[in-house]
Amino acid sequence: MEILHSISDVKKYVKRFKSEGLTIGLVPTMGYLHEGHKSLIEKASSENDRVIVSDFVNPIQFGPNEDLDVYPRDLEHDAKLSESAGASILFNPEPSEMYFDDAVTFVNSSEITDVLCGARRPGHFRGVCTVVTKLFNIACPDKAYFGEKDAQQLAVIKRMVRDLNFDIEIVGCPIIREEDGLAKSSRNTYLSPEERKAATVLSRSLNNAREILKTGERDADKIIKAITLDIEKEPLAKIDYVEVVDSLSLKSVSKIEKSVLIPIAVYIGKIRLIDNFTFNI
Amino acid sequence: MEILHSISDVKKYVKRFKSEGLTIGLVPTMGYLHEGHKSLIEKASSENDRVIVSDFVNPIQFGPNEDLDVYPRDLEHDAKLSESAGASILFNPEPSEMYFDDAVTFVNSSEITDVLCGARRPGHFRGVCTVVTKLFNIACPDKAYFGEKDAQQLAVIKRMVRDLNFDIEIVGCPIIREEDGLAKSSRNTYLSPEERKAATVLSRSLNNAREILKTGERDADKIIKAITLDIEKEPLAKIDYVEVVDSLSLKSVSKIEKSVLIPIAVYIGKIRLIDNFTFNI
Repeated sequence: MEILHSISDVKKYVKRFKSEGLTIGLVPTMGYLHEGHKSLIEKASSENDRVIVSDFVNPIQFGPNEDLDVYPRDLEHDAKLSESAGASILFNPEPSEMYFDDAVTFVNSSEITDVLCGARRPGHFRGVCTVVTKLFNIACPDKAYFGEKDAQQLAVIKRMVRDLNFDIEIVGCPIIREEDGLAKSSRNTYLSPEERKAATVLSRSLNNAREILKTGERDADKIIKAITLDIEKEPLAKIDYVEVVDSLSLKSVSKIEKSVLIPIAVYIGKIRLIDNFTFNI
Repeated sequence: MEILHSISDVKKYVKRFKSEGLTIGLVPTMGYLHEGHKSLIEKASSENDRVIVSDFVNPIQFGPNEDLDVYPRDLEHDAKLSESAGASILFNPEPSEMYFDDAVTFVNSSEITDVLCGARRPGHFRGVCTVVTKLFNIACPDKAYFGEKDAQQLAVIKRMVRDLNFDIEIVGCPIIREEDGLAKSSRNTYLSPEERKAATVLSRSLNNAREILKTGERDADKIIKAITLDIEKEPLAKIDYVEVVDSLSLKSVSKIEKSVLIPIAVYIGKIRLIDNFTFNI
């Protein structure tokens, strides 16, 4: 596996891969890779001749009061994990390699980004859409892999690919969890031992909601209420949002009649965690 | 030459061209092709194995009070001209083929689009950047050709290609003029015979400005004043803007010390025409 820092080096490899008729899978990440990322890279390796993992903490998707400066980084670990999962290239650029000081062009999305995390993190999805467009143009993948934990991101990227005619298949991959149910996330490392325990309330509340749905409940408000009550029992938890939305448009749903996404964002102490599940009818 | 109306048909040809190792030149147009477009297609034909001309009046780059509904169209003429200039494909999609009703993703640009035509046509360059991104993703060109008449468009697209890492060379082509100097434009057909005569004031005023620059004048205000006075002599003309800007950033310049763009927009009756020249030091 090659670790590359410059866009032009990646393009050289991509050109060679293409000229040899090889397919390319892209796994965009912000590094500090865990089992969730590993599952994406393994899936990409099983479906493509070559896999490019990008490892870039994208500054423009962080708000001014967010955790850009302290976001965890460990390139050596990332390289080992990527290689063992079958990657051919780990692309680890500096921010100055990715963004000109006088950059003026951005890819943005409306409506689908005005809700959930998008409503709470202004500019976040503009940063995501822009960096993913850049990575698509640099890596020219046949397929790109995103985790279902960032459900809104996955929906936004799928819509972007459709709207802008990227000839790329977007593959969503299931959430990978710790043994006690907590969804894997680089941000879990911020949690104190006590908070780590409390954080299981996210997946527990969602599991309970799934059971209620299985009994035939179709009133979204009742599902939201059940999740809310569960989370409120945990003293360290503070709800950011609990919603029931259409899986594609992410618009709020009141009566559950087709496939819905049930996403939640919860502060555990100062750490904001997200989780979700999709319920198909 | 093939006339294609669907994105998937264009993609089939593009895939075949790529698999045969052929280079592709793209000439994006809004149709009603004139000698200016012809020069772009001929240039593209001379530099690429295959040329795709898009012929699409892009609704999202028109403002609510602009001329979308009356914009001139003549597919038969466009097909003849494109074929004779060496095009392989004329891509003429319906708006519904290009835009989903629930499209939410757009490419936008700031700063460089906050001046000149961008300041007067809100949303125009968002429409241009979005459709050009889509055309880039559909046609996968090695090079794309744009006229220098739309100087701001050319600057915006160059910046977009750089900022979003499109692997495409943008080629600007010189303005083609009528014998009396009027820059060729599909919108010239709107002019009455009297207005058509008056319209020569644009190129005349720019020619005079060029002569003044050649004498060594470097004060931008004096250049602007000379052009303004020339245009004000023409009763049918009303200035929209006359500016002296940096060729790359399009920021206003007061002292002319390096390459500048001198763009003007002038109403002749109700018809808004643009023209420009670049002065290199």
